[in-house]
Amino acid sequence: MASKWLQERLHKGYAQSMEVTTMLADERSQYQQIKIFDTVSNGRVMTLDDIVQITTRDESAYAEMLTHLPILEHGKAARVMIVGGGDLSIADEALKHKGVKEVVLVDIDGRVVELCKQHFAEINARAFKDKRLTIEIADAFEYLGRPAQKNRFDLIVADRPDPVGPGKALFGDTFYDRVRGALKPGGFATFQTGVPFYQPWEITEALPELARFFPQSGLYLSVVPTYIGGFMALSWAGKGKSLGTPAGIKAAAKRFAAAKLKTDYYNPAIHAACFAYPEWIQRLVPKAKKRNGPKKKR
Amino acid sequence: MASKWLQERLHKGYAQSMEVTTMLADERSQYQQIKIFDTVSNGRVMTLDDIVQITTRDESAYAEMLTHLPILEHGKAARVMIVGGGDLSIADEALKHKGVKEVVLVDIDGRVVELCKQHFAEINARAFKDKRLTIEIADAFEYLGRPAQKNRFDLIVADRPDPVGPGKALFGDTFYDRVRGALKPGGFATFQTGVPFYQPWEITEALPELARFFPQSGLYLSVVPTYIGGFMALSWAGKGKSLGTPAGIKAAAKRFAAAKLKTDYYNPAIHAACFAYPEWIQRLVPKAKKRNGPKKKR
Repeated sequence: MASKWLQERLHKGYAQSMEVTTMLADERSQYQQIKIFDTVSNGRVMTLDDIVQITTRDESAYAEMLTHLPILEHGKAARVMIVGGGDLSIADEALKHKGVKEVVLVDIDGRVVELCKQHFAEINARAFKDKRLTIEIADAFEYLGRPAQKNRFDLIVADRPDPVGPGKALFGDTFYDRVRGALKPGGFATFQTGVPFYQPWEITEALPELARFFPQSGLYLSVVPTYIGGFMALSWAGKGKSLGTPAGIKAAAKRFAAAKLKTDYYNPAIHAACFAYPEWIQRLVPKAKKRNGPKKKR
Repeated sequence: MASKWLQERLHKGYAQSMEVTTMLADERSQYQQIKIFDTVSNGRVMTLDDIVQITTRDESAYAEMLTHLPILEHGKAARVMIVGGGDLSIADEALKHKGVKEVVLVDIDGRVVELCKQHFAEINARAFKDKRLTIEIADAFEYLGRPAQKNRFDLIVADRPDPVGPGKALFGDTFYDRVRGALKPGGFATFQTGVPFYQPWEITEALPELARFFPQSGLYLSVVPTYIGGFMALSWAGKGKSLGTPAGIKAAAKRFAAAKLKTDYYNPAIHAACFAYPEWIQRLVPKAKKRNGPKKKR
C-alpha cells in the first residue's frame, strides 16, 4: 500500500512533507480547510489550508515561550487574552500559573476549537475543564476594539496565523493600537512574528510598528522545528516595563522555581538566551530609537 | 513547464524539498552521488546521496559556530585540522584568523573538493588560494591514526556526515581516541552531532563517549535551517580547557572585536547563548560525572 504524505507549501520554492499514519479530520469550515492527522515523525498535527498550525511534538517551543516568559517576568499577571489559539495550547500554558484568574481565548473559527477538543485532548483536556477559561468565537480584531476591553489584560498573546487572508487584520496598525488599548499598565503583549529565514519581512514590518505604538518593545527567538526555517521570531510589547532585562530574567527564574512548572522547552537558561540573535537576524532588527526621538527639522 | 524539485528523505516519515532552478552537477564519485544545484529559496546547494550538505544561504550557522567559537576561546590556535569539509566552508572560516598558521583538510572524496571549487567559489575562492591550507584526499580516520599527527593540532573540527555508510567510523570509540591523540594540550575539538529533534541518539551516544576520552567536553547549539529539525547539536571536547566558561566567553568577545571578523551568524551574544538548551534537549544530556567518578563496588 502506498503511504500517504501531506505537503506544506508555505514558502516559495520550499516544501516540507510528513507521512500520515491516520487521517482524523478533513473538513472545510466557514473559514478554512481543517486537517488533523497522526504522523510517523511529528506526532499529531493540525493544518489550516495545508499550513502546519500545531504538532504535539513541538508545540511547547511555541506555546511556552509566548506565555511563561511574559507571565514570569510580569509577576502578577491575572488576566490573559489569547488572539486565535483555538487549539488551546497557549491557554493550557497560561492556566498553569496559579496567579492567572481569567483567560479569554478569542478564535474566529468554532470548528477549529471543536475539532481540537476532540483530537488534541493530550494538550487541552485540562484547559477545557478549567473554569478560568472563556472561549469566545469571534473576530479577535473586532473583539479588541470593544470599549469593554479597555485596560483589561495583563497579557495578550497574539497566536496569529501568517499574514495572509483573514489573518491580515492581525498585522496592521489598528491591531497594534487595539492591543495597546486593551492592555493594562505594566502589561505585556507577545506576537507570533514569522520565521525570519523565509519571512524576514515579518520582523522588519512588525518591529517598527510595535515601537510606534508601545513604550517598550522588542524581539525574542524560539525554535519550532515544524514552523520550518530554524528560528521563529516572537515579538513583545510592554506598557510600562521591558521584557528581557537582567532584573526581569532573574525575577522570572525565582518565580519559575517557586511555581514548580513542568516544561518541555522553557527554562531560565533559555529565557536568558532567547534575546540573543544571530548576526543575520540582528541585521533585520531596526536600530533602537534614541530616547528623545529623532531631531525635528526646522 | 513543470518545475523540478529535489527531495531529501533523511528522517523517517519526514521530507524537505527545494525547487531547483539550475542543475550544475550530478555525478557519481567513488563514494557517493554528488549533486550541486541552484534553488529558488536556499541559494546554491550540494547534496551527497540526496542529503543536504551545504547551502550558501545558511552555511554560516554551521561553519562559523564550529570554528570561531573554539578559536576565539583558545586564543592561540595555530594549527587546525578539518575532518571532511570538502566544500571548504570550515577552512574558509578558520583561515580568517590571522593567528592560524596551518589548516589541514582531510576529505575522502576528491571529486567533492573539485566540484565545490568549481561551483562554490563564493564560499571558498579565498581559501583555495591561501597558502596556509593543505588539502589531503584521504580517509580522515586513517589519517588521524598516523604517528605524525600526535599532539599536532590546536583545533580539530569534525565536519562529519551522518553516521551512516563510510561516515560511521567518524562516530566510534577509536575515532575519539585518535582525535584526542592528535590534539595538543589546551586544544579543542568540535563535532557535528546531529539534529536532536530527529536524531536524539547522536547526542546520547556522543556525549558519554567524549566524556570518556577527554577531560572536558559538552554540547552547544546552532540553528541551520536546511539541516532540518530546528536545533543542530554541536559537541566539543577539550584537552585542558573547557569551552563556554564565563571567562572564556568574555575573552572570546574581546578577541572577536579585535579581529574585526565579519560574520553572518556568530557574535558574542550568540556565543554566550549557545550553551543554553531547551528543556527537552537538556533531558538528553547525561548528568555530569562526579569529579571522583562513581564509587566502586567492593
